[in-house]
Amino acid sequence: MESNLSTIRVIYADTDAMGIVYHANYIRWFEHGRNELMRQVGIVYSDLNQLGLHLPLTQVFCRYLLPATYDDLLTVETNFDYIKRASIRFGSKIWNENRQKLHAEGYTIHACTNHVGKIRRMPALITGLIEKYSISKGE
Amino acid sequence: MESNLSTIRVIYADTDAMGIVYHANYIRWFEHGRNELMRQVGIVYSDLNQLGLHLPLTQVFCRYLLPATYDDLLTVETNFDYIKRASIRFGSKIWNENRQKLHAEGYTIHACTNHVGKIRRMPALITGLIEKYSISKGE
Amino acid sequence: MESNLSTIRVIYADTDAMGIVYHANYIRWFEHGRNELMRQVGIVYSDLNQLGLHLPLTQVFCRYLLPATYDDLLTVETNFDYIKRASIRFGSKIWNENRQKLHAEGYTIHACTNHVGKIRRMPALITGLIEKYSISKGE
Amino acid sequence: MESNLSTIRVIYADTDAMGIVYHANYIRWFEHGRNELMRQVGIVYSDLNQLGLHLPLTQVFCRYLLPATYDDLLTVETNFDYIKRASIRFGSKIWNENRQKLHAEGYTIHACTNHVGKIRRMPALITGLIEKYSISKGE
Repeated sequence: MESNLSTIRVIYADTDAMGIVYHANYIRWFEHGRNELMRQVGIVYSDLNQLGLHLPLTQVFCRYLLPATYDDLLTVETNFDYIKRASIRFGSKIWNENRQKLHAEGYTIHACTNHVGKIRRMPALITGLIEKYSISKGE
Repeated sequence: MESNLSTIRVIYADTDAMGIVYHANYIRWFEHGRNELMRQVGIVYSDLNQLGLHLPLTQVFCRYLLPATYDDLLTVETNFDYIKRASIRFGSKIWNENRQKLHAEGYTIHACTNHVGKIRRMPALITGLIEKYSISKGE
Repeated sequence: MESNLSTIRVIYADTDAMGIVYHANYIRWFEHGRNELMRQVGIVYSDLNQLGLHLPLTQVFCRYLLPATYDDLLTVETNFDYIKRASIRFGSKIWNENRQKLHAEGYTIHACTNHVGKIRRMPALITGLIEKYSISKGE
Repeated sequence: MESNLSTIRVIYADTDAMGIVYHANYIRWFEHGRNELMRQVGIVYSDLNQLGLHLPLTQVFCRYLLPATYDDLLTVETNFDYIKRASIRFGSKIWNENRQKLHAEGYTIHACTNHVGKIRRMPALITGLIEKYSISKGE
């Protein structure tokens, strides 16, 4: 299964007064991982924009298992959960550096819309990934 | 049912290059709403800390319905979904100013832990809210 | 001298693992204050945008005097330092609630540009404030 | 002169509705650069903390020259401007990938304090860098 591994170094900006990474920052790192996964399979988000398309979030979920702290080197693992006609779901895991401890895991679901927010079918650019990378069609 | 309504003015910092509020900022506003709800029922988070207790997030979910944009005045509605022995769930809604359009809704689940992250029972300070405000025990 | 006072409640999202407000968040609150000051003198930023104009930052400075912490209620004080032909400078102070302790103070300088970033003269909408509110012309 | 070059990929979280990187995020990236520079000369910030010391910001300045946009790969260049008895100044530049276009440049000044915020002399761990890397003493 196609997945991307990228790396994040935790800085003070990412932490909070409990001494750990603030929970909403994992959601931000999910975006970082999606971008890297897309780039890995040959899609730059701005290519989509030039087709007049966006992939706005419709849902996010995250489960927090183990706090990460200042200066940790984290591994963001991202994969395609499924690609449907008008939606796509990415799975995200935030690991410690060597992927032996899982800090958080979750997913985001995205619609496909035009510039004014109208739902559109996923372009071939994206549905073409299904066969190429054996991605689930979410049925 | 006890709930809190508080107000957020969207600034550029909250938006992204799609021209709308960046999704992770709703999660940040959920925290704002929880604080205000807790304050409304007489609990300041630092009181908990002085008992040696924290309420770290274990899960977050958010569904995005309608984009909010720069300079919008948003209403954050927060309530107690349930209070259990060792966890608490808050429900959050982000409305437009007059609460006729719902931008996003979701929830956060929190454990009760001591300073080193060990699970603890919810203190009476919190379980005492169940009866006072007729809050579900989540069964 | 025309100035605006607005209020910010510090949440965990604003703090860092040193237990204090993360420094870049004061810069974000400067923006909040500028918006409120502009609204107070009758200008909504989107009015400018409809004239095809923007006020992008060209400089920011902040001096940190006293750390703010979780749950503090802060007062953001914003005023016009000067309005020139093609730039405007706002002064910002972040106080504690009753303005007896100053946490941080600084300024931002903004150019006036069109949608593609070309420098433009300040519109009458803004230069008109100089006389009305006795604002310095920065000479 | 000892300096560090590190790399940042701009994500949507970093941008705002003007379609460019939100100005306060450069300040966040300055922190990223300082951490990497310190690590490069053998100092991990948590080593300082174990000596009971912190380096809180006392001033930040940034000049914005050219907007960066979504998906840009940026180079953060960081160096020591000076190290004094009780303060240290870092210089920061945010370049495009190949360092031919400068997006922003600035500096941060930091005090040396103990855990309760009292000013302390810079530890030998830091002043020792002056000779080793020919850093200015700021006189």
